[in-house]
This record gives sequence, structure tokens and C-alpha cells, in this order.
Amino acid sequence: MAGRARGSARALLAALLAPALVALLVAPARGRGGRGHGDWDAAVALPPLPPREDAARVARFVTHVCDWGALATLSTDQAVRGWAFADVLSLSDGPPGAGSGVPYFYLSPLQQSVGNLQENPHATLTMSLAQTNFCRKQGFDPQSPLCAHIILSGTVTKVNESEMDFAKQSLFVRHPEMKTWPSSHNWFFAKLNITNIWVLDYFGGPKIVTPEEYYNVTFQ
Amino acid sequence: MAGRARGSARALLAALLAPALVALLVAPARGRGGRGHGDWDAAVALPPLPPREDAARVARFVTHVCDWGALATLSTDQAVRGWAFADVLSLSDGPPGAGSGVPYFYLSPLQQSVGNLQENPHATLTMSLAQTNFCRKQGFDPQSPLCAHIILSGTVTKVNESEMDFAKQSLFVRHPEMKTWPSSHNWFFAKLNITNIWVLDYFGGPKIVTPEEYYNVTFQ
Repeated sequence: MAGRARGSARALLAALLAPALVALLVAPARGRGGRGHGDWDAAVALPPLPPREDAARVARFVTHVCDWGALATLSTDQAVRGWAFADVLSLSDGPPGAGSGVPYFYLSPLQQSVGNLQENPHATLTMSLAQTNFCRKQGFDPQSPLCAHIILSGTVTKVNESEMDFAKQSLFVRHPEMKTWPSSHNWFFAKLNITNIWVLDYFGGPKIVTPEEYYNVTFQ
Repeated sequence: MAGRARGSARALLAALLAPALVALLVAPARGRGGRGHGDWDAAVALPPLPPREDAARVARFVTHVCDWGALATLSTDQAVRGWAFADVLSLSDGPPGAGSGVPYFYLSPLQQSVGNLQENPHATLTMSLAQTNFCRKQGFDPQSPLCAHIILSGTVTKVNESEMDFAKQSLFVRHPEMKTWPSSHNWFFAKLNITNIWVLDYFGGPKIVTPEEYYNVTFQ
């Protein structure tokens, strides 16, 4: 922005924002990866769990509140070739309150999982409310279906141009530390293209949710 | 214990323990799955992380402080047959302060993962300090190696007679809710027989730890 007319508006804005900016500067980085992480800290209450019968909505809820998950891929490592391999990856489906349901990742070819995906992009991601304070507070065992968890199978691919900005914004808002990761690791944005969804949120076994039902969920 | 001589010793012991016993009786069940869970609640500080160079010790540490993990198995589900499948399972490697390094599970043939294991027992378990408050408190992103996580590959098998008591004690102390799970689910004790261990606790890529190094670790 240039020009005198905008100059005074800018000064006003700066004056209004100054206290917040100063607070951000002087406060120590807290929470996972720094301030403004947008993740549900142990001290902050989670939004309420949707009705358990609404499995698609529960699935979207879990995807949104989790900021990491475990990804299963087929191993290309000589030691365990062809076996199922599991690893932990950070993720985000959108900025806080604006989840898309699409799990985005920030990956490097140096990661074991990525080496596996390059040979076979099929993968399964699992996320659990045990990762938040929900289950602990409610007294639900991590393996209890009441401690809801979801399983998303599909393929992991690089994010294309049109989705790049949203993926970047989604990840960096919730994982600010990513902005500092070394470029020598050749980081790239990826996503899980979901083909199968299982929701374990109540007794009676896994509920199958279709990708259509999953993406049709809207949050107010 | 019977007999008058022991009677007075017992009375003394009871008098000393009484306040603690009363406290246990009247306090509400808290934490995951009830009292005496032995798990590291968000309010309780974790023991300190071992030196990161001691990868075997870090691996044992992570296995011990985690009470669940994500297990990757090869899927037998028609929809995704042959793909890598991921699921969440509760686990315990021993009562608090007495970890063995062996991840024990309490499984039911009704679980998807168990159906998979029955066809192919090879599996990979991953556990992360992101499951505790460690990474959050230190400001480490879940995907940062500083937020240590481990990957254990091997085979999952039923626990044999000689190990049954320890497996049961290990699991039930940390997952008391398991004692209430319905017998109609045919629960059984299982373990991961570890063949390969990778530790990501520092920059520079995964460190390989042998099962021998892993089991040779002793904690004071």
C-alpha cells in the first residue's frame, strides 16, 4: 500500500494492532510449534463431539481437531520389504474452524514413508481423539470406541497448483515450525485422496462412511 | 496371612495405609479409564527423556510412557485388500516404572486389525511423544524429530502361558477399563515380537536400534 491517503489509515490500524503485535513478540512460543498454532491445547476445551450416530460428521470432526496422525504404507526398506510400515506425520485439513476434510501433509523425500509412497501411493491414515484431551477427560480407554478414532484409506499424492495455497495455509497456521524446516530437505505439499473411511465411535463395530458423505458435511 | 503374631503387624500396616486407601475409595475415577491407571496424565510431569544419543534407551522410554499406538497391518478387507491398513490399539509394556519393552495388547477377533493379523502377522507399531504432553510443552511439532517417535516392526502373536500373567497385569493396571470389556468379544493377550526398531529423536534421520540393544537397556 502506498500513498498518503492510505498512510493515516495504516497508522490507525497499526495503533490498534500494536498491543497484540507486542504481545506476540514478547511472549514465549508455546504449544506445539509456537504461537497461533490453532491446535487444541490440553488447557483449551475441544468443541463438542458431534452426535455419534452422525458418523460422517464425527469423521470430519476428528480429522479437523487432530494435527497429526499415523500413516501406514507398504515398506520398501530391504529389512522389512512388503510389510506394512507405520509412521507419524503432522497434518492439517484447514485452518482452525475451517476444516476441509482433506488431510494435507508437508513431506520430504528423505522420510521413510515418502520413499514407500513413491513406490506405492496407497496408504491408510488413522487419527484418534486419544491425541487430544477428550478421552482422558471422559475416562475413555484409547481402544474404547467411545474414544473415537477414524481410519482413512486412499492414495497420497502431491498437491497440485490450484490447491497449493490452501494446503500451505492450512499446514503453516497449525504447524508454524514447518516454516523453519530446511529447504535442503525438499519439502512438498501432499494430500490423502480418500477412498475409504471407517469410523469407530460407538459399540457395534466400525461404521463405513463414503467419501461423498464425508465431504458433504458442512459446519456452521 | 494368619496368626496372632502377624495380626498386630497387619493392624499397624492398615493404620498406616488407611488414609491412602480412603482417598482412593472416595476420589472420583480420573484419567484414562479410571484411577490407578498409571498413565502420564497431562497434569503429571513425564520422567525426563533419556539422552537422545542413547537411542535404545529413548526407544524403551517411548514404549513405556505410551499407552496406545498405531499399528499397521496388511489389509484383508475386500475394499482395500493388500494395502497397508492403520488402526489404534491400547498397549502396555509393563506396570508404571516397570516397563519390559514388550508391547502387549488386548485384542478381539472382531477387530479389523486382528482379522488382518490372522492372515499375516507382520505388523509395524508406531508410538510418539506427541501422545503425551512432552512435545506440546517443549514446543516441538509432532513431525519434528525432537518430538521423538519410534517405529517397531515385527510379528504380533498371542501371548503364551508363561507370559500371560505379566501381560495381563501390565495391561489391566494401565487400562483398568479392559476388565469390563465383554467376554463375548473373545479378548486375548497378544504381543509384538520386535525384529526392527527405528528411532527418530534427533536430526539426521532414523537411528536403527537392534532388538538386543533395546532389551539390554536397564532402568534403575
